[in-house]
Amino acid sequence: MKKSIVLAALLFGGITVFAQTKDEQALKDIYKSSLTNAKCYPWLDHLSNTIGSRLSGSAGAEKAVLYAKAQLETLGLNKVYLQEVMVPKWVRGEKEIGYLQLGKQKIDFPICALGGSVATPKAGLNANVIEVKSLEELAALGEAKVKGKIVFFNRPMNPEFVETFKAYSGCVDQRSSGAREAGKLGALAVIVRSMNLRLDDFPHTGATNYGDIAKEQRIPATAISTNGAELLSKSLRTNPNATFYLKQSCETFADVLSYNVVGEMTGSEHPERIMVVGGHLDSWDLGDGSHDDGAGCVQSMEVLNIFKNIGYKPKNTLRVVLFMNEENGVRGGKEYEKQSNKNNENHIFALESDSGGFSPRGFSIEADEANFNKISSWATLFEPYLIHKFVKGHSGVDIGPLQSNHIVKVGLQPDSQRYFDYHHAANDTFDAVNKRELELGAAAMTSLLYLMDQNDVVK
Amino acid sequence: MKKSIVLAALLFGGITVFAQTKDEQALKDIYKSSLTNAKCYPWLDHLSNTIGSRLSGSAGAEKAVLYAKAQLETLGLNKVYLQEVMVPKWVRGEKEIGYLQLGKQKIDFPICALGGSVATPKAGLNANVIEVKSLEELAALGEAKVKGKIVFFNRPMNPEFVETFKAYSGCVDQRSSGAREAGKLGALAVIVRSMNLRLDDFPHTGATNYGDIAKEQRIPATAISTNGAELLSKSLRTNPNATFYLKQSCETFADVLSYNVVGEMTGSEHPERIMVVGGHLDSWDLGDGSHDDGAGCVQSMEVLNIFKNIGYKPKNTLRVVLFMNEENGVRGGKEYEKQSNKNNENHIFALESDSGGFSPRGFSIEADEANFNKISSWATLFEPYLIHKFVKGHSGVDIGPLQSNHIVKVGLQPDSQRYFDYHHAANDTFDAVNKRELELGAAAMTSLLYLMDQNDVVK
Repeated sequence: MKKSIVLAALLFGGITVFAQTKDEQALKDIYKSSLTNAKCYPWLDHLSNTIGSRLSGSAGAEKAVLYAKAQLETLGLNKVYLQEVMVPKWVRGEKEIGYLQLGKQKIDFPICALGGSVATPKAGLNANVIEVKSLEELAALGEAKVKGKIVFFNRPMNPEFVETFKAYSGCVDQRSSGAREAGKLGALAVIVRSMNLRLDDFPHTGATNYGDIAKEQRIPATAISTNGAELLSKSLRTNPNATFYLKQSCETFADVLSYNVVGEMTGSEHPERIMVVGGHLDSWDLGDGSHDDGAGCVQSMEVLNIFKNIGYKPKNTLRVVLFMNEENGVRGGKEYEKQSNKNNENHIFALESDSGGFSPRGFSIEADEANFNKISSWATLFEPYLIHKFVKGHSGVDIGPLQSNHIVKVGLQPDSQRYFDYHHAANDTFDAVNKRELELGAAAMTSLLYLMDQNDVVK
Repeated sequence: MKKSIVLAALLFGGITVFAQTKDEQALKDIYKSSLTNAKCYPWLDHLSNTIGSRLSGSAGAEKAVLYAKAQLETLGLNKVYLQEVMVPKWVRGEKEIGYLQLGKQKIDFPICALGGSVATPKAGLNANVIEVKSLEELAALGEAKVKGKIVFFNRPMNPEFVETFKAYSGCVDQRSSGAREAGKLGALAVIVRSMNLRLDDFPHTGATNYGDIAKEQRIPATAISTNGAELLSKSLRTNPNATFYLKQSCETFADVLSYNVVGEMTGSEHPERIMVVGGHLDSWDLGDGSHDDGAGCVQSMEVLNIFKNIGYKPKNTLRVVLFMNEENGVRGGKEYEKQSNKNNENHIFALESDSGGFSPRGFSIEADEANFNKISSWATLFEPYLIHKFVKGHSGVDIGPLQSNHIVKVGLQPDSQRYFDYHHAANDTFDAVNKRELELGAAAMTSLLYLMDQNDVVK
């Protein structure tokens, strides 16, 4: 080996060892703080069990805004404030009713209106059901076979994908566009199989989007549990002329004022450079939104608590943002970007946690090659904490609108196997979150923010 | 670059690509089979919900032996048989009673006898309590301060460890040796804080070991839930003279005949080389042993089912062994090794799953450097399936006794965060296991066995 190479290796090796020792110690301190002295779990307990569900425009959402602000105020930050944002207000109304009439037999099904759906007529509606597996199959049937019927979208999530979010992406068009497309063909309503890999009795809600269809032409959309979908499909095979009765009384009201909650540690060296960490404070109305996304909110708040506890003062400004209205409008994310633009703010980094409070596995990174490589080079620092995944991909819905030159955006990626067991359903509750898994996620987020703060973004 | 290097790179690269393509396809087939066509989850359902707990020597254990044998017989293996093994028989008896007497107030505590413990006198026993954090602290107190008292071991698991098994190792001496050591100093009984990182109301059992202490000198040992331990400690601080009442009626009977369950696909090229995959069929008596270790048994059985489904015939003999009596004696593991020696069998590989049915993260490998490096070199093949951890370490208790020249032993490492929430407690039940996580573990195990079968062990 040439001497120059040996020398370079020694020098470089020496530098690496020194740099890693400091960073290694920081990550140790961060993890210790999170695993022994965190507030995120009791915060989530309050958010879930005392406040409960937090659909945009609901009393729960407003209570959550005040609670999160009050808690951030206990952390000795430089600023804590509310950012106004107008949000949609959709209300589920009475418990939905759905049953199949088979001669004299009535089979009840567990259903729930999809978010944003219109109501049925007050007396409910009653029609034959036609099952399809996709929007394409629906289009091929055409108006003649669809008109006057209830369209039942029954394509299950594909269990072959190891990452469940891929299976979700491959199914969610039924929920988001099914009512719009079926309505165009004269259907009376749609029933959509829940986006859940498990067979159980929970119907999962989620936004449906009518696009530019006039209000009076919109048709009701409801979700059915996976067990329900299996049974309905089986029943229709033997009784294709059976009729389904559906009643729901949901309603959309005028937009109401709500808030993003913001807390800030001003940067000691570059106060004008902003790093954002956040999740969304709103949830669907069925459970208490513990995984989606109470977990992401309290983890984001915990980042600042950990920095406070270990005495770390970020060089850049660190801002926690609890976004309002991710679930049915992303109004909070859009408003945050709008205000940021107006104030000529410079965001260098944004990190979102919105994939559940499960054991963290890694990060999904939206960045140019140089920054992706830089973040990936920290993998060895994360390895002792079982953070192994550094992949290119989607970061988060709330930070999606955020655009700055050279901004790096990252999403925390927890283990995804159980996420869709709870997503948008009545069983997304506090008991489904494990304290340590939540804390490990907060520690992984804090560690990444520390490293981003220590190492300038590559420009 | 020199031409020879370029050529070597091309050749080597070419070989690698070819080899990986074949192996990549095999892993794809394995995962697809496990995620879409597995039997492990319904097998576990039966084992847990129809049979229930399977403590060595119990009716449940015997039913499990017959059920597992019958299920293996449906897989078209070359051999399925039972291997006789004498096992201890310990019976819990009546529900234990434990309360603290504070003047006229009685505070009930959730307790359960440790496995192997002796009973209290029929009327129970009643004594002052002395709290210690360790065996060292107990020894320092000495006979004068311990005699006639109940010793309360209350060192919690250390939450700072990311890997919960490390925290368990750091605590379990209280359970395994506490009664023996306190008995030597004249204590009347011991109460041991459950090995659980979560604060809850479940006492966790597990083996206690009296060593060579004569039967009549053994003192009763009981576990207390983590919430109970916190409350007892707090109560003793303000009322150091309070007395604890303990009653348990557990009993050890003569050893009984039981079985390891064995199924075998004979190797197509090297029938004399044996690869073992297994878990333990026995469980503690409180829950239904779904995670510990029903999961490992059905995953091991699933390996053979997957090979059958994808039409893979192993070159080496593949043997599934469902060991009896891991929990309180390891008699099954020892007997298997004894018979293997007697028959001059040549084991090249052993894989155990006994860390719960959670999302698999990797493998803990007992091997020499060459074989460790070989297995680690497969990491890129496993990466798409989120298997990242290839570490040196303990493989499994049941395959522990197995010794052959050059044998490689591996333990599946699932995510460990929730394991001790359920371990040896009444909440280790079927509903705590996620179907996909279980199947992903089986697929990871099958993939490793496929690769071991394709690539000779380095000698």
